[in-house]
Amino acid sequence: MSKHIRIEKSKQLKEKPDWNALGFGRNFTDHMFVMDYTEGKGWHDPRIIPYAPLSLDPATMVLHYGQAIFEGLKAYKAMDGRILLFRPGSNMERINVSNQRMCIPQIDTDFAVEAVKTLVKLEEEWIPKAEGTSLYIRPFIISTDPFLGVRPSLTYKFIIILCPVGAYYPEGLNPVKIYVENKYVRAVKGGVGFSKTPCNYAASLKAQMEANEKGYTQVLWLDGIERKYIEEVGTSNVFFKIGDEVITPALEGTILKGITRDSAIRLLKSWGINVIERRISIDEVFKAHYSGKLAEAFATGTAAVISPIGELNRNGNIITINDFEIGGLSSRLYETITGIQSGQLEDVMNWTVQI
Amino acid sequence: MSKHIRIEKSKQLKEKPDWNALGFGRNFTDHMFVMDYTEGKGWHDPRIIPYAPLSLDPATMVLHYGQAIFEGLKAYKAMDGRILLFRPGSNMERINVSNQRMCIPQIDTDFAVEAVKTLVKLEEEWIPKAEGTSLYIRPFIISTDPFLGVRPSLTYKFIIILCPVGAYYPEGLNPVKIYVENKYVRAVKGGVGFSKTPCNYAASLKAQMEANEKGYTQVLWLDGIERKYIEEVGTSNVFFKIGDEVITPALEGTILKGITRDSAIRLLKSWGINVIERRISIDEVFKAHYSGKLAEAFATGTAAVISPIGELNRNGNIITINDFEIGGLSSRLYETITGIQSGQLEDVMNWTVQI
Repeated sequence: MSKHIRIEKSKQLKEKPDWNALGFGRNFTDHMFVMDYTEGKGWHDPRIIPYAPLSLDPATMVLHYGQAIFEGLKAYKAMDGRILLFRPGSNMERINVSNQRMCIPQIDTDFAVEAVKTLVKLEEEWIPKAEGTSLYIRPFIISTDPFLGVRPSLTYKFIIILCPVGAYYPEGLNPVKIYVENKYVRAVKGGVGFSKTPCNYAASLKAQMEANEKGYTQVLWLDGIERKYIEEVGTSNVFFKIGDEVITPALEGTILKGITRDSAIRLLKSWGINVIERRISIDEVFKAHYSGKLAEAFATGTAAVISPIGELNRNGNIITINDFEIGGLSSRLYETITGIQSGQLEDVMNWTVQI
Repeated sequence: MSKHIRIEKSKQLKEKPDWNALGFGRNFTDHMFVMDYTEGKGWHDPRIIPYAPLSLDPATMVLHYGQAIFEGLKAYKAMDGRILLFRPGSNMERINVSNQRMCIPQIDTDFAVEAVKTLVKLEEEWIPKAEGTSLYIRPFIISTDPFLGVRPSLTYKFIIILCPVGAYYPEGLNPVKIYVENKYVRAVKGGVGFSKTPCNYAASLKAQMEANEKGYTQVLWLDGIERKYIEEVGTSNVFFKIGDEVITPALEGTILKGITRDSAIRLLKSWGINVIERRISIDEVFKAHYSGKLAEAFATGTAAVISPIGELNRNGNIITINDFEIGGLSSRLYETITGIQSGQLEDVMNWTVQI
């Protein structure tokens, strides 16, 4: 693979968005990174070009058979002007885990981090500076053969796009109401639940919509086999503080190995808190609540970082967690992770990468 | 919805492919049908335009979250010159079943059939005439909002493309070797297995590739919960003739409601054969073989119509079915269905629709 990234600058730069009303996922920067894969030739022609529509044959395989993966990470502008990435190597390693499951060729993870750095540096003026804002980075790979028939594609595109974002949840760090899903299933062992592939998100929409209609922000997914063990909340990992322990579902092939999940586990451990990765049933959570031991629950993810869970509804049985207040661990984790990400706190874990 | 299909003819027609080496899914015709959906406005602007690449923003939701569905059906040129479609209304009804699960707005099924008819009529010269060939019709819907964030799209495109095809399996109607999948799972109850969405195909690639490497054409999927009940073969429904009965897995939400499956069931019943839709375990099939009762097995699907199964390999236990010969039911179903489809046999079931 050629390591030289060709750069073609846009001749007409876009107007920057209103920094005070960024929202999430709507405004994209002036340039994007693109690299092609062809069977026999490997990944080639890495380039940064003006952000523009892709020209895709109507028979392009990704539109029909969904062979694709993606990632999400963020760049931050520190008060002192440094540009910081948060654990970008972990995202790129996860791309290869996803690729392996989806029959997509492996990428050079170090080079992919270099591509992110080069693109973000070029788009430095697009990184928002206000508290809670960042430049969201979306690397993704799509299968591009113009072919109808079920087999892995022989050609792919690896693309990185950037968008300045505000908070994922407009309400900010506030407890959310979560509906325990009892009809739909997101993933099962032997499937693709651990892979960051479009599949898992398409399959989750219906449950999310029905939960929204009932007044809930997201669903809590149970396992597809026994329908009793907790998997994820929406597209985020989930943690429960029960007594002196913090419990999060173990990685058994059905849930994503979240990078914020891992960061939370490591921070909690560094604070002397007993974190356990194991199976945890929804019954156990409700029993812990009724016996007064369920102190806190929260979800972790790149987009929202930490989302405290204020209410769980299981078949009409509703429990309120921590009086619908932001818990101590939730706020400490949120402050610490976002503090490290944005360069306001010392990076004791050596997680940030300066561009 | 406007019922008028605007037609913009291509100024430069393509060269027709080599009719004797068509293959499958590689050559597309001169025109395509496109219709847009916008929230609040509904489906609008149905049009037939020159076949050309789609211009899609890199943030187009289908590329990231996979919200999409598709269908597959065929048009045939009868000896007497008639153009025949096979049960097109069933495909369009299934689009709405898929749409409902994937949170995509419903379509007008009658109008969609009209769209197929209008497009196929315009492309009449692209319909191959040789035995076993046809014009494959691929309707599909993709989510098109340029937005990053997990929610249903507010805009969609419904597109129909056409490609002249030879036999799906180059070897024609020959028994295939099938590997009983013991590691990967395709779908589970509560998921999207019954929906014709890209998800299910992306999730199946890895198992298919590993089976190919072992010398098998496809996998036989077992259920995701007990890993013992038979679901599908590759992307096709499956039938077993055991004694005097023909058994096919019941529709319980994890497999596609195949139109060829339904056609096979109705034909078999019309021939006085006892067809049963129920759960059937892989153990039952192997036991039937060892007791001499497993007479025949075959898969059904639009692409290949009927695929006789000559061998099953379960964890190294290999059984040969019907001496690796094409069974009587397989060939009778194949001859009857393709005969009706191509207008060579009387359409006693009233399945074909003439354009």
